[in-house]
Amino acid sequence: MRSKNRTEGELEIIRYLRKWFPERRSEVLRGIGDDAMVLRGGYVISTDSFFEKTHFDLNYFSFLALGRHVMAASLSDIAAMAAVPVAVLVSLCVTKKVDMQAIRELYDGFARLTQKYKCDISGGDIVKCQTFGMTITTVGRTNAPLLRSGAKSGDFLFVTNFLGLAEAGRIVLKERFRKSEYPDGVEKHLFPEPRINEACSIKKYATACIDTSDGLSTDTHHLAEESGVKIVIDAEHLPIHPEVGKLCGLKRYDPTRFILAAGEDFELLFTASGLPKIKGLKVFRIGRVTKGRGVYLAAGGREHPIQPSGYQHIGQ
Amino acid sequence: MRSKNRTEGELEIIRYLRKWFPERRSEVLRGIGDDAMVLRGGYVISTDSFFEKTHFDLNYFSFLALGRHVMAASLSDIAAMAAVPVAVLVSLCVTKKVDMQAIRELYDGFARLTQKYKCDISGGDIVKCQTFGMTITTVGRTNAPLLRSGAKSGDFLFVTNFLGLAEAGRIVLKERFRKSEYPDGVEKHLFPEPRINEACSIKKYATACIDTSDGLSTDTHHLAEESGVKIVIDAEHLPIHPEVGKLCGLKRYDPTRFILAAGEDFELLFTASGLPKIKGLKVFRIGRVTKGRGVYLAAGGREHPIQPSGYQHIGQ
Repeated sequence: MRSKNRTEGELEIIRYLRKWFPERRSEVLRGIGDDAMVLRGGYVISTDSFFEKTHFDLNYFSFLALGRHVMAASLSDIAAMAAVPVAVLVSLCVTKKVDMQAIRELYDGFARLTQKYKCDISGGDIVKCQTFGMTITTVGRTNAPLLRSGAKSGDFLFVTNFLGLAEAGRIVLKERFRKSEYPDGVEKHLFPEPRINEACSIKKYATACIDTSDGLSTDTHHLAEESGVKIVIDAEHLPIHPEVGKLCGLKRYDPTRFILAAGEDFELLFTASGLPKIKGLKVFRIGRVTKGRGVYLAAGGREHPIQPSGYQHIGQ
Repeated sequence: MRSKNRTEGELEIIRYLRKWFPERRSEVLRGIGDDAMVLRGGYVISTDSFFEKTHFDLNYFSFLALGRHVMAASLSDIAAMAAVPVAVLVSLCVTKKVDMQAIRELYDGFARLTQKYKCDISGGDIVKCQTFGMTITTVGRTNAPLLRSGAKSGDFLFVTNFLGLAEAGRIVLKERFRKSEYPDGVEKHLFPEPRINEACSIKKYATACIDTSDGLSTDTHHLAEESGVKIVIDAEHLPIHPEVGKLCGLKRYDPTRFILAAGEDFELLFTASGLPKIKGLKVFRIGRVTKGRGVYLAAGGREHPIQPSGYQHIGQ
């Protein structure tokens, strides 16, 4: 599954919407610019679209795996707000080749996660379309939503796992490398896990949070922009999973650049002034927050500005 | 814009989901099977998808008109629950031909209605896709949601306007009939109005309600099935707008069958034991609720069972 390609194009649209469509309703505590909107009453709502060719490849996704995958990606936005999932609505766009059996398998895939995280499938829409795909709307609840906008100078930047694994897995499946040599990457691409439980563990300490759906550089840019701070990623603290290192060697990619651009890991990228040891929680400290603006990579004793770098820009 | 074709296929999926995915969360007061899900706290949430070729034709829809149209269709679900709109989330699927200018016009179209009905555009998603389209998630609020399931024997069936006008307008535009001869139909297809204000007027009296998006027969079936009643539509009380009569004459369609199948009028179809005269509200009484099951058409002194019949069954 590809990065959602939310780069300059999306940032431009977000800026446009905020300028021309500011929030007015008192029920809306937080609108455009976060992982989910926040309603008075503690509900958070997010929506994500997934379409064939752009976001997934049915050559190696079964309908069951696909259902589970898109549900993980969708619930990940709820995790990023430190909320627990309550309900999802599914808008399916079906083509002629998608029959009732396929739809059942897809829903079985959804259910692997909705049952695990105890949320309902509570509605949706089914339409005919020329491209197969779906939009998932997720509803979560929290007494204290964790926003992208709370990072403060002096905080550190953390991530809940290795990055780049999902993209490595996607390349392995797409280009038919030997899957048995990349078990973690393949597993991560096919069966990512929304970090609902991890969000629950860190919410007391975190000042800002986002899920890594668009790649480390883009996602860090979102945190920096929403918080009005500068964030420095330390290249030497970026953990490189052996499978990512191996694939980058084979493809002659620079592993750091690969990790900056690779999306869809659905880990939590968050800031905190500190974090105690929490049982069962794996985190890496990969950077720091300072006064200023923008995102930088510290490497070789210097700070290099980095741009949001998804795969492609919108409109291309 | 075509009927959403929610007929037997959708009913089958709804039955499947209800059986295998029952509601469990205490926050979810009402899930699959209504115009919107209902959350504790009075929020209602609905989601609707619209895709090129299936749901709209860019040969006669400008991006601005399209934006207004899909927003009307989406807010109509909120009206059907007798709620007021609070916020919408827009998931856009863009192709190469949809540039920033087109997106701005589309949002201007959305804003025609979100501003009129005072709700926020509070988030969404933008992805590349091989088919242009969008999914709109609408959030509304009400202290007493009006469900599909409250119709009782002895109630009457009402509708807030003529039916079939939008479909007449679509045919006129599609087949290039003279638009000036069908001003109401063309207006209705291009610029439908969500019946937010009307819903507010009738909510005190109505026992069940749905918006007419899929055609009178399908929508009445939804009311009958959810309420566990039989509904009889009186053919002689079905109002026929002159433009619908004229087009049906030209195309040799039976006007009653046309109205039963024609969708996208986005009127309120509701039941009530009675309705006082309400200033500024136009309603037609078109049928009655009795004990039993199913939907019937009373014509020529007899009752004929009618099936849910989306647009594709007529004229094809």
